[in-house]
Amino acid sequence: MDGDPILEAYRLWIENGWGDYADGLAAVTSIIRVRQVLSTRADQVLAPIGLTFSRYELLVHLYFNDGRLSLAQLGKRLQVHQTSVTSLVDKLEAQGLIRRTPHPTDRRSTIAQITTEGHALTSEAISRLNAELFRDLGLTSAEVRTLISVLTKMRRSWGDFEGSWGDFGAASVRESQGAGVE
Amino acid sequence: MDGDPILEAYRLWIENGWGDYADGLAAVTSIIRVRQVLSTRADQVLAPIGLTFSRYELLVHLYFNDGRLSLAQLGKRLQVHQTSVTSLVDKLEAQGLIRRTPHPTDRRSTIAQITTEGHALTSEAISRLNAELFRDLGLTSAEVRTLISVLTKMRRSWGDFEGSWGDFGAASVRESQGAGVE
Repeated sequence: MDGDPILEAYRLWIENGWGDYADGLAAVTSIIRVRQVLSTRADQVLAPIGLTFSRYELLVHLYFNDGRLSLAQLGKRLQVHQTSVTSLVDKLEAQGLIRRTPHPTDRRSTIAQITTEGHALTSEAISRLNAELFRDLGLTSAEVRTLISVLTKMRRSWGDFEGSWGDFGAASVRESQGAGVE
Repeated sequence: MDGDPILEAYRLWIENGWGDYADGLAAVTSIIRVRQVLSTRADQVLAPIGLTFSRYELLVHLYFNDGRLSLAQLGKRLQVHQTSVTSLVDKLEAQGLIRRTPHPTDRRSTIAQITTEGHALTSEAISRLNAELFRDLGLTSAEVRTLISVLTKMRRSWGDFEGSWGDFGAASVRESQGAGVE
């Protein structure tokens, strides 16, 4: 890959007479690519403590839910297939970071319970991600706010969440009004 | 899931004294979530013609490269592991949309060649994605340009591409200067 694949695709769309859709294509492929860059970076930040970003995402949900959720709840919150949850739970259990326990009232359901080691490692993972990823995305503060507000608007228009929590989007839209990209 | 999980995470970060990292967290998790929403939508658009977005992404690379690339080249361009390429190629070959051919000079390498049916279906897929996804992301034109320019800046600062193709980013930055979110 010599240049920027997204610019190459953008130019192909223009050349083929699809100019009306070229910005949409570039936006969608940019999101896909940035997501990949961020995942790779998060994996690098977490590798020294034996975690991947996927495993971290499962742990952090337990961490903030009194240490326990059913495997079904985890699937919903992580938006992944139940087989992926099972696979992640297997790995985290083998690492001693969580353990499976039976559901107290529903025999068909299984609970994932974070261990003391899992809780401590999740704290460490949060500190690392805060310091090495979330602190500096290569953007100004105003650009980060603009990014959040545009993505929030997209999510709302695609029905990803209901209006009742719209304060966040509304607040960031107000703050980012007129904030250009430096 | 009652409200917006990203707003919930944002609030947790503030409550825990990690306010300096809350915007970065919200931006990263928004990108992850929007990527997922877009993939799901693209899969829905392509399902009626028997494609998934992953299969489409492989086909479209062949489509714009004279119909043929080696499996190794496809892995690089799609930024996925070689086992994923093999799995996609298996499915597309079973659908009659591509066929494997030996590399003319390198015996260890395999070429994926798009078939006439594959070429026609890729055209159809592009039309559908243009009309049903890229045309309307739920944003104004100015917001789409702002989104592209912020993501381009992120990609550049993370080393996702070299400066030589920077015209695209520079152009969108200029056009989106002062473009707020409506």
